[in-house]
This record gives sequence, structure tokens and C-alpha cells, in this order.
Amino acid sequence: MSYFDAASSAPLHPVARQALQASLDEGWADPARLYREGRRARMLLDAAREAAAQAVGCRPDELVFTSSGTRAVHSGVAGALAGRRRVGGHLVVSAVEHSSVLHAAEAHEAAGGSVSRVPVGRTGAVDADTYGTALRTDTALACLQSANHEVGTEQPVAEVAESCRAAGVPLLVDAAQSLGWGPVPGGWSLLTGSAHKWGGPAGVGLLVVRKGARFAVRGPVDERESGRAPGFENIPAIVAAAASLRAVQGAAAEEAVRLRALTDRLRERVPLLVPDTEVVGDPVRRLPHLVTFSSLYVDGESVLSELDRAGFSVSSGSSCTSSTLTPSHVLKAMGVLSEGNVRVSLPVGTTAEEVERFLGVLPGVVAEVRAKLGAHTHAGSRAASRAGGSEEAAAEVAGEAGPLVVDALGKRCPLPVIELAKVIGRVPVGGTVVVLADDEAARLDIPAWCEMRGQRYVGETPAARGSAYEVIRLA
Amino acid sequence: MSYFDAASSAPLHPVARQALQASLDEGWADPARLYREGRRARMLLDAAREAAAQAVGCRPDELVFTSSGTRAVHSGVAGALAGRRRVGGHLVVSAVEHSSVLHAAEAHEAAGGSVSRVPVGRTGAVDADTYGTALRTDTALACLQSANHEVGTEQPVAEVAESCRAAGVPLLVDAAQSLGWGPVPGGWSLLTGSAHKWGGPAGVGLLVVRKGARFAVRGPVDERESGRAPGFENIPAIVAAAASLRAVQGAAAEEAVRLRALTDRLRERVPLLVPDTEVVGDPVRRLPHLVTFSSLYVDGESVLSELDRAGFSVSSGSSCTSSTLTPSHVLKAMGVLSEGNVRVSLPVGTTAEEVERFLGVLPGVVAEVRAKLGAHTHAGSRAASRAGGSEEAAAEVAGEAGPLVVDALGKRCPLPVIELAKVIGRVPVGGTVVVLADDEAARLDIPAWCEMRGQRYVGETPAARGSAYEVIRLA
Repeated sequence: MSYFDAASSAPLHPVARQALQASLDEGWADPARLYREGRRARMLLDAAREAAAQAVGCRPDELVFTSSGTRAVHSGVAGALAGRRRVGGHLVVSAVEHSSVLHAAEAHEAAGGSVSRVPVGRTGAVDADTYGTALRTDTALACLQSANHEVGTEQPVAEVAESCRAAGVPLLVDAAQSLGWGPVPGGWSLLTGSAHKWGGPAGVGLLVVRKGARFAVRGPVDERESGRAPGFENIPAIVAAAASLRAVQGAAAEEAVRLRALTDRLRERVPLLVPDTEVVGDPVRRLPHLVTFSSLYVDGESVLSELDRAGFSVSSGSSCTSSTLTPSHVLKAMGVLSEGNVRVSLPVGTTAEEVERFLGVLPGVVAEVRAKLGAHTHAGSRAASRAGGSEEAAAEVAGEAGPLVVDALGKRCPLPVIELAKVIGRVPVGGTVVVLADDEAARLDIPAWCEMRGQRYVGETPAARGSAYEVIRLA
Repeated sequence: MSYFDAASSAPLHPVARQALQASLDEGWADPARLYREGRRARMLLDAAREAAAQAVGCRPDELVFTSSGTRAVHSGVAGALAGRRRVGGHLVVSAVEHSSVLHAAEAHEAAGGSVSRVPVGRTGAVDADTYGTALRTDTALACLQSANHEVGTEQPVAEVAESCRAAGVPLLVDAAQSLGWGPVPGGWSLLTGSAHKWGGPAGVGLLVVRKGARFAVRGPVDERESGRAPGFENIPAIVAAAASLRAVQGAAAEEAVRLRALTDRLRERVPLLVPDTEVVGDPVRRLPHLVTFSSLYVDGESVLSELDRAGFSVSSGSSCTSSTLTPSHVLKAMGVLSEGNVRVSLPVGTTAEEVERFLGVLPGVVAEVRAKLGAHTHAGSRAASRAGGSEEAAAEVAGEAGPLVVDALGKRCPLPVIELAKVIGRVPVGGTVVVLADDEAARLDIPAWCEMRGQRYVGETPAARGSAYEVIRLA
């Protein structure tokens, strides 16, 4: 059993467990009360705040504990925007922020604010200069994650912070994915984190607002946590969160080297072992423990489910999972293949043996899913295999020069791409295939397929139903 | 060591502790994921929801877990108001709701809504008919607690729910103080609760929205908990909360009888043992474990601190504590004495011996604080004792019929009342004393003193600084 989805939630760190259990007896009372149980609770809370502040690199009075990373983001974005509403109602975010940031941005838009979404390149990173040009005189807040949660790419936070400083705009850094690896350097104004990402318990986030950053609390008044996080403090969990943050950061330098070697190995071996697979995200400027790849001709859900059966827990940004009908906004913004997407994020302590076992299992899993879907693979120059249903799906070529039309309407990812791959060999080099598809993922995956397979993607035109994607055979 | 502040937060119930520890290993993963760790987490969450719903008396799909009772109230009030905004923007609350409800109401007012606050009688209960008349055609929501958190008085929820039903207005019941004692009967539409009040862990609240009740989620979108409670679910704590709710409810009938006998004993003995003390709240329709009383001529903070020293942890709604400058809004709405206020709320398992020990300690504590403040007590008809400073404070009687003016400006509770008590014997029966005071508590405590001491309170008039409170000596 190997759990490789630390980026979703990490198992409870032993230090967190110990601290949680130790503080259950001491930390249940109201820290606002003056009797001894209250004073004990207050002491635990104060000590946890000191420890967390040290780990983050801020003053204790700049840090409050929220009930989750999501709440920290929602409150941080809303409070910072409200604090600067006289400056204007413009918010800048990157296109690949966590959904909590993007949802906060949508709420801001719904309330009449404006939002600029800074695009990213193929590695998933924003360009610091491009980000800088998005800042305006009416920009109230800018948001940038420290590292991306789906592909692991680190963002140029220090450079963007410098642009923000020059423009007089506060920068909020969502550090959920990176805080366990160390504090975020640079001149940010607000920072958010989430304890269960670093091995702390669920139920604890943190919101840091630097002295001097304007902040106006939204929503009903509450006296706890400087008014920034309503509700009775969850002190045992807060103590556990702070203790485990210090513990994981203390071991981070060494563990990062070890896990980076394992993810380097995955980045190198997966594309060799699994044909038609692309590793995405920045190969160097990235989180040490996370690697993401996409494989043609498979659906994410089947791969996840087969890997689960084989004892590996991973996640996917594919649209072809039961929980979502659209591909990950991150992969979309990067313009990379979304079908057959797999994110591997290794928890602290993952062994080389587990990774080797994963490398041993993965090729068979992908091949099996491909076989079930009737997809050929393009390893080498092998000809297309017998493809069930593709004969019916491919309309007859209308004339010598007419395009071959593939009707993939109503078919979900990865079927439109599988159909395309099956028939591309039936038009001559220079000939055209048109894929009719109404699955959202086709918009991303057909161009991505063309790039991976060396074919030319011409473009998309609206059709009576869905879109028509035009592809010219080059090879 | 006796902790008598269960109404603030109860120590972790053994069942909660056990469930929490057992689910730390199983409940840390993302329940939205399909791999085995996710499925295990989902099963725990579903089972906890079933258990909590059964304890509350609702369908599982009507109940979501929030990060605190405060969050449940804030979200519940905002969502119910938004869901019925086409009906109107009027909100009805009782004057003695928990601050989380009142703060949500203030936020509603700040956003342009209107709020009616239904007054309460001297026992702290609303009158159901009075409540009913506050409902209007534009009333979007009505809120009523199941029982009051400061004085323990139960509210006529079933009758008010019936009025609300007749008026087509949804009723939100804040059941934070009573849920451990059993489900809230009657036709409410929304209900909120807080786990750490019943011996569950902090970090878990619950919000129930009955099918058919209109509800529109406010704030940024989040897919968790039916969109009603953003942030990663704290499953171990949720499991512990649900398990302990069922456990405490299971033992509630028997424990209620036992604790009611102990609070009956306190209600009977405290006024006999401590002169000039009033027990407040309904003697019959009340929570079994909670009793509140106020003693003249002492400040809440000193009493709390002396009781703490003697091994008893209680709380106070007095203004004379370091954490607040205004008396409890509950005591104020009831029109009862706020000085020297003490709330005793017994946790499950409190022994008769602890209560007897408290009764043994309390009279000495109050007497000591009174002595330090230079206050006499009115036990029997004893004459006023030598009162340090009162000679200077009492201005000379201007003429035979002129009032005696006591300058208590700048003096905080309980000093204005102590000064009044010291000089009342210096005017003849029928004579007048005027107290000049600028402490907020005087407005409540001078009339309350008059009622307790059998003097006539004439009224209050604004003065150059503070107010002038006029009292006629009757006895």
C-alpha cells in the first residue's frame, strides 16, 4: 500500500499525533477565560502561535489560525480587498491558483470587482514581467501561489513580490503546497497555509497579515483570533499543526534531496516505460515530492482505479473522472494534455522501493486501460491496431481532397482523441481529419495530441453541436 | 479542582477521545478521492453524518458539519436570509441570543437589512405571543435559541415555531446549549450546534437546513459539505463529535435528573448563604446543569479570581471583568443585577461533594471581596459599616429637602452601587439620593439594587458627564 497523494492531504505526522494527544487534556477550555483551564489553553495557543510564526517567518501577532487553508484564503482575499477598497476593486491572480483563490476571485467579481488572470507558460509558471504588467493603479490585491498544487512548479514569488512592492500592491501568497518545505522568502504582505498538507491535522489553516498591510474583516464580528477567524479555537489541533510544521521543516532539507531523487527518477522513467506520455511542469524549479504526467488514450479514472487496485493512491486532473466534467484549470492554462493525467505526490518517508514498485506496475496498468478502450499505442511506428467502432465513426472520405470526418459527439475524453489517432493513418500526408466533439477536454487534448504526435493542429470552429477540430497529417 | 463552566466548553468526553484517536489513522485523507484512503475517510464521514442526524432528528442530507458553532450560525443566518431575500430583508431575533447570532444580525443590518429584537421577561424567556407579533410579511428569518447560555432559561421554541409556521417564516434554532440534552422538538427549519459544548472536540459545529427551507450559500463557492461549509473536512473531529453527541444524549435523561438536583440545591442555598444575592433565570423551565446568580457589592472579576484560587472555575456576565466594559446583554435584557454575576454550569459527572464544597467556599469568597471593596452587607437590618471614601463621595445635603448627591463618576461597577448603599441611610425615609455615574453597568445595577433592597428607583436623567440616577429611600 503506497499513498502517493500527499498534495491532497498528508497522513498525520507522528509529532502532530503526539502533540494532539498531549494537548487534548490541556487545550479544551476557552482561552479567553481567566481561570486555570482557560489560562492553560491560552498558554498552549500562544506557544503554538509563536512556533508557527517562527516557521513562517513572521511576528506572532501577524498570524492567526483559521479553520482551514480554504478559510484562510477566503478571509485573506476578502479582508485585503476590503482594506484597500478606496484604492480600487481590481484583483490580480494567476490562472493556476488553487480553486479557493479562484473562487474568492469569482465572489469578488460577483460583487462588482474586476479580476485579471495572469496566464502561465507550458511549465505552469507565470512570467514575472507579465505578472507585473497586470498590476494597475486600481489594483487592491495580487495573489500568487508559492508552488502549483497539480504540477509542482514553483512560481517566481520573490520577483513578483518586488513588482508588487514597486506598484504599492500587497501580494497574498498561497503557500499551502510549500510551507512544509520551508518559509516563503520575499516581500509578501499576506500568506496562507493549510496544516493537513504538511502532516498536521485537518481543521487548521493559517493566515498571516503583515503589519502595515491594510485589512478589513468581512462578515459578522467575532472577537477570537484578532477578529480574523470566527469561532472557538481548536487548540489541540492548532498545537499539533504548529509542532508538526516545525518538525517537517526541520527535516525538510534532507528529505527534499531524497524525494527529489525519487521524483527525478519518475520523471525520467515514466515516459520511457509508458509510450505516449508527457511529464508536465518545470523539471527544475519545482516541489521536491511531486511529479505529474499525462498519457494519451486512457481516462484518468480507469488509471486511478487500476492503480488503486495495485496499491497506489494517486490523483488526476483529467476530466474523465467521476467527480468532474471539465479538465483541470491548471492543465488547461498550461495548454498540456489532460487525458490520462496522473499526479504523484510522495509523502515524507516514501521509500525508493515503493517508487520502483510503482514504475513496475504503471506500464501494465496503462496498457490494460488502453486495451479496454480499444486504443493502439504509437510506440515506434506501429500501424494502428484494429479499433472497435472506429470504422463506423469515421465517415467516408467525401472526395479525393475532402476531409475525413470523425463523429465523436457524445463521446467523453479520451475517446475523441482515440478516434482521431485511429483514423489519422487513413488520410494521406497533407490530408485533413476533422473531429466533431462536444467534450470539453477535446479542446485541450486534440491540440496536445497533435503536438505530441507531430501532426498539425489547424484550429477549432463551432459546429451545429460541439466543435469541429481540424488536423492535418504531417507524419 | 472543579471545573464549573461547561456552558463555555466541556472537557473532552471519553467517547470523543476514543473516537478521535481511532479515526486519526483512517480519517486524514480527502473523502472526495476515490482511492482506498479516500473511501475510508468518506465512510467515516457518512457514518458520522448519519449518527449526528439521528441525534438531531433530521435527515443526513439536511446536516452539514461546519468548523464551529459560530460558523454554523453565521452561515445559517446569512444563507437563510439570502435564500428568502425576495420575501424581504427583515430578521427577527430574541434579545438574549448568543453573540454569534446577534453579530450575524448586525452584519445583516450593516448590509441594509432590518432587525427586530424581541425582548424577554425577568426570567430571560421570550413571550411566544410577543415573538409572534414581531413577524412581518417581509420577515425572511426568525432566530431563537433553545435555551439561554448565560442563565439556562429554556425558550418556548415549539410555540414560536408554530407562529413562524403560520406566518410562513423559517425559524433558526441555535441549540448550542441544549443539544447534548436531547433533540429540539418542534417545527424549526434550521438548527445549529457546537460540539465542544457537549464534550466533543473543538472545530466542529453543525448546521441543519430542513428540506424545503430556502437557502442560498454566501461567499466563495466550495464543493465540500453541500457547498455550505468551505474547507477540507476535519473527519477525526467530526467522528468524535458525532460519537460523543450520541453518548451524552444516551445518558442525558439520567444525568439531567442528577444535575438538576445539584443546581436546585445551589439555587436554594446560595441566596441563604450569601446575603444580597439574587438567583436569576427560570427556576423550572431551564437547563438542568446551569445556575446563575448575582451578588451585590462585589465585582465579577474578583469573585472569579478568588473562586479560581479556591479551585472553582466559573464565568461571569458582569461588566467588571477585564475582558469587557459592558454588562452581559442577556442580564441587561432581563433587567437583573449584573454586578457580582456568577454562572455555574456543571459538566457531566459533577459530584454532590464538589457542589457542597463550592457552597462551603462561596460565602467566604464573597465576604472577602466585599470587605476589600469596603462594602457593608445588608444581612438583617444591620447599620451601614464604616465605608472608606464614602464620606468624601457624598456631598453635603444642600438643605432639609434637597437630595444627597453621590459622585461616582469614573468609578466602575460595583462601586457606584456600593456608594449608594453606603449613603442611603443618611437620608430620611422619603428622602432622595442622586448617583452620578458613567459606568455602563450602573444603568442596570442601580434599578436592580433598588428592587432587591426595597427602595424606589425614580429614573435616570442625562448629566454633564454620565447620568444622574435618582433613588428614593423607602426603608
